[in-house]
Amino acid sequence: MKRRHFVGGLAAAAGVAACGKEAADCGDSTHASTERFEWSCVTSWPPKYPGMGMGVENLAARVEAASAGRLKIKVYGGGELVPAFEVFDAVSRGTVEMGHDASYYHKGKVDAAQFFTSIPFGMNMLELNGWLYYGGGLELWRELYEKFNLVPIPCGNTGVQMGGWFNKEINTPNDLKGLKMRIPGMGGEVLRRAGGTPVTLPGAEIFTSLQTGAIDATEWVGAYNDVSFGLHKAARYYYYPGWHEPGPGLETMINKDAWESLPPDLQAILETCCQAITTDMVAEYTHGNTFALQQLRDDPNVELRQFPKEVLDVLKRMTDEIVAEWIAKDPAAKKIADSYYAFLDKSAYGQAVTEQAYLETRT
Amino acid sequence: MKRRHFVGGLAAAAGVAACGKEAADCGDSTHASTERFEWSCVTSWPPKYPGMGMGVENLAARVEAASAGRLKIKVYGGGELVPAFEVFDAVSRGTVEMGHDASYYHKGKVDAAQFFTSIPFGMNMLELNGWLYYGGGLELWRELYEKFNLVPIPCGNTGVQMGGWFNKEINTPNDLKGLKMRIPGMGGEVLRRAGGTPVTLPGAEIFTSLQTGAIDATEWVGAYNDVSFGLHKAARYYYYPGWHEPGPGLETMINKDAWESLPPDLQAILETCCQAITTDMVAEYTHGNTFALQQLRDDPNVELRQFPKEVLDVLKRMTDEIVAEWIAKDPAAKKIADSYYAFLDKSAYGQAVTEQAYLETRT
Repeated sequence: MKRRHFVGGLAAAAGVAACGKEAADCGDSTHASTERFEWSCVTSWPPKYPGMGMGVENLAARVEAASAGRLKIKVYGGGELVPAFEVFDAVSRGTVEMGHDASYYHKGKVDAAQFFTSIPFGMNMLELNGWLYYGGGLELWRELYEKFNLVPIPCGNTGVQMGGWFNKEINTPNDLKGLKMRIPGMGGEVLRRAGGTPVTLPGAEIFTSLQTGAIDATEWVGAYNDVSFGLHKAARYYYYPGWHEPGPGLETMINKDAWESLPPDLQAILETCCQAITTDMVAEYTHGNTFALQQLRDDPNVELRQFPKEVLDVLKRMTDEIVAEWIAKDPAAKKIADSYYAFLDKSAYGQAVTEQAYLETRT
Repeated sequence: MKRRHFVGGLAAAAGVAACGKEAADCGDSTHASTERFEWSCVTSWPPKYPGMGMGVENLAARVEAASAGRLKIKVYGGGELVPAFEVFDAVSRGTVEMGHDASYYHKGKVDAAQFFTSIPFGMNMLELNGWLYYGGGLELWRELYEKFNLVPIPCGNTGVQMGGWFNKEINTPNDLKGLKMRIPGMGGEVLRRAGGTPVTLPGAEIFTSLQTGAIDATEWVGAYNDVSFGLHKAARYYYYPGWHEPGPGLETMINKDAWESLPPDLQAILETCCQAITTDMVAEYTHGNTFALQQLRDDPNVELRQFPKEVLDVLKRMTDEIVAEWIAKDPAAKKIADSYYAFLDKSAYGQAVTEQAYLETRT
């Protein structure tokens, strides 16, 4: 299984080894090609947004440094070059070479891609990466994006998110009935089936909607991003855990023609920088969440609460129903789900006796 | 705090920008230098050992691919070029350019470095990386290694380990008294203070010592490595969690003169490849532990058990005593401990309401 998950790594190593045989293609194998590339990267994030937005800025800076300036990437925030949720199409068509996004935003275009970001009650960050890099997940992702002329590369993760901000207490599953909550994607479908009313709102309208009572609740990301958005000033109860997004992985996607135009060493640089950004972004979130949660615990107007077990049980049951119905009618999703849940069914025990058992020694 | 934790990243970016001013040094800024480097990297691991050993092999392969062969690293297993526990001295003296190791092996030479691998009841992998990259930990590490002419770069992590293999049941703290256990480092000191007898044994002797009853118990790494060592054939009880090593981070260390001889792009490549290896190695461990634990659960001769809370409480109290006595007489350790525990005291809450609370929804 060694490095089979790397597209560029092996290609580059093979390329180096092959030099000399086809000198016209390779030139001198002791130095890199001198060709320069200037790429545009569109994203769904506000420019330089903490965590995900900084992650893609860091990616561009590293690629430039590691390539001695041969691959320069200009990053655009959501809406600066293309609208936030049209990243997939823009890269697929070749309007730009590259995007940084979350694959569950492509619902309606390629529903099955949701598994590669996050599924309610699904994998945490550790499990997602174990499955992607060593359990065959990334091969399935590449296969899924192939017909869109896209190469996906995992790049970043937010870790387990928070359950969201509520102006109503959630004590029993009955409290979900009629709850107007901003929660997109599959989490929203789960809430609907539990009796609530999921609402979709652009980021800029969330704060005011919550403050005026137009919605009862909203999820966003985790404490680091939520505090930067001021949500603690518009709601009293901050519920955990983020059952609907237990470790969302982000993606770099590259137009396949652009990818193939790169020499093997630049492919290897881009791919390894993306994997480094995962370590770095998770570290930024762990650090940022630590201090944001400290601030919220010290805030007399905020109460941190754990969702009651019977509420989580209902949400889990609704999730299982939705996933079962979905994969029964979507063969592409079924193929990925079979691999995803086969791994998760086993990895959950490993997480319980390592990460969870250790954290429990503290309480 | 943006990217301040990168040595090479900023230097490389600055180097690119500066080119043209000193054309003799820089050459054409649009392509990388053509100078070639062939380095040796010594390690403390058996050659190609699952997890840590494969991590450094993967590192070498990626650096070669990303540099188009300009930086080739030949990896040596423990004992192949220098003895397993002399990696630090060999790199410090410049006998070789580079090593891959665990900083807590340098006890007796630079005791304070233990914080950068793992401390009993200390940070897990997420917290360690949050502290190293965004909380000032890596700056303290660099400062500590400076006088040894070494540049440390975090590179890999095993995740929360397992408590170890026992041929005696551990039901109360009294069962630790007289327990002969192979457990090195600070974990061993903690066991001694709890009444046990820690033993140091080379890896090759562990299996036989456990099987013949020369020792009652041993810790090693986690299920992935333990099964590869056959330990499940020499003991009945497999205890968790690994309270003594809750997320050991590994290190690449580079001789400072060798580091400074690299052009900025190769420094950036090496640094970012090390950070990528952390994501990759953790994924390998998550995947490998998942299947090894599955095998152990199915093995009628193995019983997986959680350490009783009162046993963990005693071990935690002993740890606190040992750390307090240590930092009272070691100013270098105190400086690092102050930063480490200031972060851990806050991050523990974040881990409880995110990772732990989420994993608890499964049980």
